[in-house]
Amino acid sequence: MSSETLAGYLFNRLKQHGVIHTFGIPGDFALPLYRAQQDAGVDTVVCSHEPNALFAADAYARLRGLGVAVATYGPGALNMVNPMAMAYAEHSPVLLISAAPGVGQRHMAQIHHLVKTHESQLKILREVTAAAAVLDNPSTARDDIDRVLGTILSEHRSGYLEIPSDMTFAPLPERPATPSPVVQAVTGPSAAGLNEAAREIVDLVRAARSAVVMVGVGLRRSQVAREVIRLVEAWQVPVVSSVMGKSVFPERHPLFRGVFMGDLGDPEARRIVADADCVVKIGVIDSDVNNGFGTAEIPPECCISLCKHGVWVRHHHYPEHYIADVMGALVSECAERDVAPIAPAIQAKPVRPAGDVATLASLGEELQALLDGGTQVLADVGESWFLGLELKVDTFMAPGFYASMGFAVPGALGAGLADPDKRPVVLTGDGSFQMTGNDLAVMKARGLRPVIIVLNNSYYELLEVIDGPRDYFALPSWDYVGIAEAQGCAGQRVERVGELREALARAWDASEPFLIEVVISRQDHAPMMERIRQFFEEKAKSQG
Amino acid sequence: MSSETLAGYLFNRLKQHGVIHTFGIPGDFALPLYRAQQDAGVDTVVCSHEPNALFAADAYARLRGLGVAVATYGPGALNMVNPMAMAYAEHSPVLLISAAPGVGQRHMAQIHHLVKTHESQLKILREVTAAAAVLDNPSTARDDIDRVLGTILSEHRSGYLEIPSDMTFAPLPERPATPSPVVQAVTGPSAAGLNEAAREIVDLVRAARSAVVMVGVGLRRSQVAREVIRLVEAWQVPVVSSVMGKSVFPERHPLFRGVFMGDLGDPEARRIVADADCVVKIGVIDSDVNNGFGTAEIPPECCISLCKHGVWVRHHHYPEHYIADVMGALVSECAERDVAPIAPAIQAKPVRPAGDVATLASLGEELQALLDGGTQVLADVGESWFLGLELKVDTFMAPGFYASMGFAVPGALGAGLADPDKRPVVLTGDGSFQMTGNDLAVMKARGLRPVIIVLNNSYYELLEVIDGPRDYFALPSWDYVGIAEAQGCAGQRVERVGELREALARAWDASEPFLIEVVISRQDHAPMMERIRQFFEEKAKSQG
Repeated sequence: MSSETLAGYLFNRLKQHGVIHTFGIPGDFALPLYRAQQDAGVDTVVCSHEPNALFAADAYARLRGLGVAVATYGPGALNMVNPMAMAYAEHSPVLLISAAPGVGQRHMAQIHHLVKTHESQLKILREVTAAAAVLDNPSTARDDIDRVLGTILSEHRSGYLEIPSDMTFAPLPERPATPSPVVQAVTGPSAAGLNEAAREIVDLVRAARSAVVMVGVGLRRSQVAREVIRLVEAWQVPVVSSVMGKSVFPERHPLFRGVFMGDLGDPEARRIVADADCVVKIGVIDSDVNNGFGTAEIPPECCISLCKHGVWVRHHHYPEHYIADVMGALVSECAERDVAPIAPAIQAKPVRPAGDVATLASLGEELQALLDGGTQVLADVGESWFLGLELKVDTFMAPGFYASMGFAVPGALGAGLADPDKRPVVLTGDGSFQMTGNDLAVMKARGLRPVIIVLNNSYYELLEVIDGPRDYFALPSWDYVGIAEAQGCAGQRVERVGELREALARAWDASEPFLIEVVISRQDHAPMMERIRQFFEEKAKSQG
Repeated sequence: MSSETLAGYLFNRLKQHGVIHTFGIPGDFALPLYRAQQDAGVDTVVCSHEPNALFAADAYARLRGLGVAVATYGPGALNMVNPMAMAYAEHSPVLLISAAPGVGQRHMAQIHHLVKTHESQLKILREVTAAAAVLDNPSTARDDIDRVLGTILSEHRSGYLEIPSDMTFAPLPERPATPSPVVQAVTGPSAAGLNEAAREIVDLVRAARSAVVMVGVGLRRSQVAREVIRLVEAWQVPVVSSVMGKSVFPERHPLFRGVFMGDLGDPEARRIVADADCVVKIGVIDSDVNNGFGTAEIPPECCISLCKHGVWVRHHHYPEHYIADVMGALVSECAERDVAPIAPAIQAKPVRPAGDVATLASLGEELQALLDGGTQVLADVGESWFLGLELKVDTFMAPGFYASMGFAVPGALGAGLADPDKRPVVLTGDGSFQMTGNDLAVMKARGLRPVIIVLNNSYYELLEVIDGPRDYFALPSWDYVGIAEAQGCAGQRVERVGELREALARAWDASEPFLIEVVISRQDHAPMMERIRQFFEEKAKSQG
């Protein structure tokens, strides 16, 4: 036996992949696991509620390539099923480590925290992860850990490890003479077909009357953002992003044109895609949201798609070539050029009178003037998301496909720790904030200074847009600044443009979390929300 | 086709079983379902977060025999997996109704809210329920609904129904000429063996030197509380309750002796059970918590157990006879007697000086003087639970086996609506409150006036008792009264006995939710917590 323990191996592996924080809440079965991560020098961030912890790990994963949550059995891990499902659906590489009753306790049919059987939790987590393992055998533990980590990193999906409490400090067998290398994401075999694919793509783009590149979230996960910039600058074609891919391409780049979401998204992006006879999708996921709910299908004849499972060119498929390989081949065809300058932050000062009522439009203008490379924007589902999609930003995170509410505030905790040089700016609604807005005190204790903007219209407004007004869409109105103050943070409630400007100035000067409650009317819609309203209105009409 | 729709049938069935409220949060796929329940006259209670909604439904179920939550697909239902697991594990008859994408949308592999496949959610919910069905066929929907409801009611476990959005208003076929009766819980066949079992039990109790009856949560679920009272009065034997069964037997009854939890529970109850040569368990679940973590196994030779799956007498089993049948047979053997008087509420006024520091002991004394038949106590895991177990109460709810944090505050919403004549009194810790304390505004809007007592020691103290002090057991200290005020409710922070007395008086007079933050030291332990501390201390010593 070596002096290396099971948990010691695991946490050292995670550190090799840049994970220096984990998120969770301790509980009795997980006590050894919490001690083990402290021993390994991993910083344990305790959150107010398990869903928050997993959302924080998700944001961390989106920025650093891997995020980790540590939970106790039953009430811990099962409270994270929804955000784990989101990490799976949204291609976020999150690992959930759950403690479990000891192997020596498995004969007990009625142990606290247990549901049906000792396998129930694993079966549940299998449904929301790309790989899962129970680490109950020290002699295979290293391989099991590496296999699950490898899948998370190559698939860019969630994964699950369950550790019986009496296995936490189990000594592992002696290592093989040559320690296995750091786990690598699997990439496709380099084959002769690569040049064929690259040549065909380049010929199609050159022959096109009007080409456009559409970037998606897969681009960030494949870490080819710089290659894409070089390529589009060589080709001099415009770039749009999918909804889920917002901010994977620099939005202040002169070739960037907006976020595409069919008839519901940016009209300029919509026009460029509709006019194009060659759309090169890079890492774009084919979802109902990305397609603007069927309002803008792109004919396969016009389409090239580099995705996780190969390359599609019109109607044929190169199954063995992945985004990173193909991007490499494409870029090698491009002559070196001067890199186009990225525009500076948009400095034009908004000019609305201070006495005007604060609206989403004025909030967008005021915020846009403040956003720069030192900020990262996180948005929740609903009006906040639609407003966020309109902003030009460098880093943007939102649950653009799975669409769970409540991501953005705890996400700011993960994002702030993952990239301390960028201040999180959160756009959230009253509904989402009421779900998971409880980690301001934790962020303060960690020295983070996010700006939390709560849009308060006391209503599930997106649902009204779909279904008309209903009693049960009304939300109780809270004093959100009072909530921030009760957690030791400051804030300001605003109704006028002048107050908004003052509050943003205070927030930008603050050395701790600052909450701004913006009171908006139910009739105040971001342009995208308004297009969605019209979409559903017309749908209702056509159905009689 | 009849004019009856699928959802119409479902909600009418639920009303026949006394369900007039459901708990949840609307979402796009669930919009038809929300309209349907409004059409059926079911009152939709919208909570701040899905876990809260399910906890509220759980408390409602514990009091009324059935509780219902209505969720949207994905982020809605998957956010309820943990409290659903708790309802399963704790024998609470909760139904979760989840919307799903329409049958006509199942060809879409990438629809928002979807995880892996259109079956993933069902597979997950199967692991935490006793019965589940997808209602995608109008011609079998009535049977599917009745089957799932029947299992929930007979097994006293959670169940799941999934309704594709385009099935919500699907017309059902004409009903059979004789409509099926209201779903009945399955009870055991009445067989000749019943008298044999009853006779044997009576003989053993009469022959015993010292008998005791131990009541468990299964007693409430089988609705035989009155029969148990009659029986013990006829036998004149003392009664203890299991941990999970607290308050199923009236605690002010002269024969009641305390809550049994082995060496860790009430010492008087422990002594009586240890001295007994005949322990009659009625509806007691054999869990590690109920057994005091192995500190008090009762020898099978001394044990009779009436449980959900038959009757055990020493080493033999009557598999076909269930609690209700056997209780009926036992009671029919008892002569009618005058019912023993239940003691009035404990009115002795606590006498500690007002200037003393408020402690758990003083809180227990002050509270005990106020608790009567008009109150129901809900407690969260940890110090709150141990304090609650010491109080003599008429109605008590706590997650005594599954032990998820965060039940009590949202539970008060469900309990308050389920039994409007009883005011909820919540004992919660700072950790639990930070998870799910966000429905005070909803309770206020519903006219409820719970008393919420938050024990604030800024620490996961139960974990310290098990594992010693750790940095990551510290909780940020909130201004809990500020949280209540931000939700439109009042409260008071107390550190002294006099303040506590004043705050309790204000709370009892209040016409809306009232929060009392009681600042306690980490060293202040309820007697049961202190016994647990000693238990782990000795365990650590014996392990070297």
